[in-house]
Amino acid sequence: MSQPSGYEVWILSIGNELLIGRTVNTNLTWLGKILTHLGYNVRRGLILSDDIQDIEWGFRTALNSKATVIISTGGLGPTFDDKTVEGLARALNRKLVIDQRVLNKLKEKYRKINLPITPEREKMAKIPEDSIPLDNPVGMAPGIYIKTNDKHIFVLPGVPNEMKAIFETHVEKILKKIGPRIYFFEKTFTATGVPESEIAPITKKLVKQYPTIYIKSHPMGVETKGPVISFHLTASSKSNPEVEKVLDNVYRKLIIELKKMGAEIKEEN
Amino acid sequence: MSQPSGYEVWILSIGNELLIGRTVNTNLTWLGKILTHLGYNVRRGLILSDDIQDIEWGFRTALNSKATVIISTGGLGPTFDDKTVEGLARALNRKLVIDQRVLNKLKEKYRKINLPITPEREKMAKIPEDSIPLDNPVGMAPGIYIKTNDKHIFVLPGVPNEMKAIFETHVEKILKKIGPRIYFFEKTFTATGVPESEIAPITKKLVKQYPTIYIKSHPMGVETKGPVISFHLTASSKSNPEVEKVLDNVYRKLIIELKKMGAEIKEEN
Repeated sequence: MSQPSGYEVWILSIGNELLIGRTVNTNLTWLGKILTHLGYNVRRGLILSDDIQDIEWGFRTALNSKATVIISTGGLGPTFDDKTVEGLARALNRKLVIDQRVLNKLKEKYRKINLPITPEREKMAKIPEDSIPLDNPVGMAPGIYIKTNDKHIFVLPGVPNEMKAIFETHVEKILKKIGPRIYFFEKTFTATGVPESEIAPITKKLVKQYPTIYIKSHPMGVETKGPVISFHLTASSKSNPEVEKVLDNVYRKLIIELKKMGAEIKEEN
Repeated sequence: MSQPSGYEVWILSIGNELLIGRTVNTNLTWLGKILTHLGYNVRRGLILSDDIQDIEWGFRTALNSKATVIISTGGLGPTFDDKTVEGLARALNRKLVIDQRVLNKLKEKYRKINLPITPEREKMAKIPEDSIPLDNPVGMAPGIYIKTNDKHIFVLPGVPNEMKAIFETHVEKILKKIGPRIYFFEKTFTATGVPESEIAPITKKLVKQYPTIYIKSHPMGVETKGPVISFHLTASSKSNPEVEKVLDNVYRKLIIELKKMGAEIKEEN
């Protein structure tokens, strides 16, 4: 991993629909991309069922890890199988309390659409003691932010547009403040016509020679001109913007070697 | 969970590209759907980096769980960051050995495309002691099957068409033989015009009354006619095909209630 440790992120994706193949986990992909660009090292994903014991296990395991940031998505709505907050409270050994600010906000939101507050709706105002609700600009259930001794925990809904809205309105600012403020650069391209096993010794040599650069090759299938390999080069540094030049250098060297082997190069960005 | 325990599956998805948001984890979705229809209870997903310690942690955690079946995807190719087999061997405390059958097969496959066997290619013939290689009908790296005292472990490549080909050629047969042979039924539809929090008490009541039926509602966004909720009802039984009738009954009752509330119903299948 090229990213500095100490800024590890664990993502917990909660919902049976992810495990039984009803829903593709695009939330993890979206969060992974943003967090990586913010300089965080997205280190692990846990996909958990709606079972409260599974959710508790997920948070407990993440709380005992080296992660600095834990982000969960899913299980925040009003239905009987939305148990994320309860599972988190158990893992933290904290009580659940009705947050008056959230309850008032929910009442106001439901009043606007002419609906009363029911026990199911009130449930969304129950959050662990000493946590900060994050208002949901496009839906009902708020997100939650909890700061423990050594972790920042963010609890977000599973509906993608609500998750993204809370992330962009609240979470991103906090992450920028507490984060590594690193320089991050990347390059991507595809090479057609040379098998991955042929390329392996070259990337191995380059990675050894330039340990700040991370090179990932990825087979994409076979076309008439031969196998297509996608490349992703990344460089990050806490203090040195010069890594961009090193990245460009490695990128050029790799492309020269691949062309020598007869590969056709297509740059992606 | 409506599925019988004792047939739990853990899926391990290995590869930095999943965590940094380069690749959406469609392998997990594909496997989750098939395994659910085969009657298995897909209970957890672990998304792991290419780091060997992370991979070892993933296998060790799954080996210590209640899972009957563990399936991994990714990290099987010839490049320096393909470390799945090594991580698995560590978690199992088994040695890695060159499998002569696999090596011969690889030599034959590379001969056909006029390429020699290099150390990088030979690496794909290294598998843990006492494991069964699963020939890759569309690519190079074979899958691996290991039977321990209480677990069945399947190691598959991350390239989707190779993963699917090995699953359909080898894994599915084994899973059908060792599996629960259950009856599995499902119904899906969407309801437009009633908020999820309004529906929550009804589904709660039905689930209590019919514990063999699992009802999952899922907000899909808001249209001009109001919120759209997707429903997924499943029923499974080890011995009783009659659960289908119970499912139909609950399905009809739920739709009647939703229509009473003014919802517009659209059946998906």
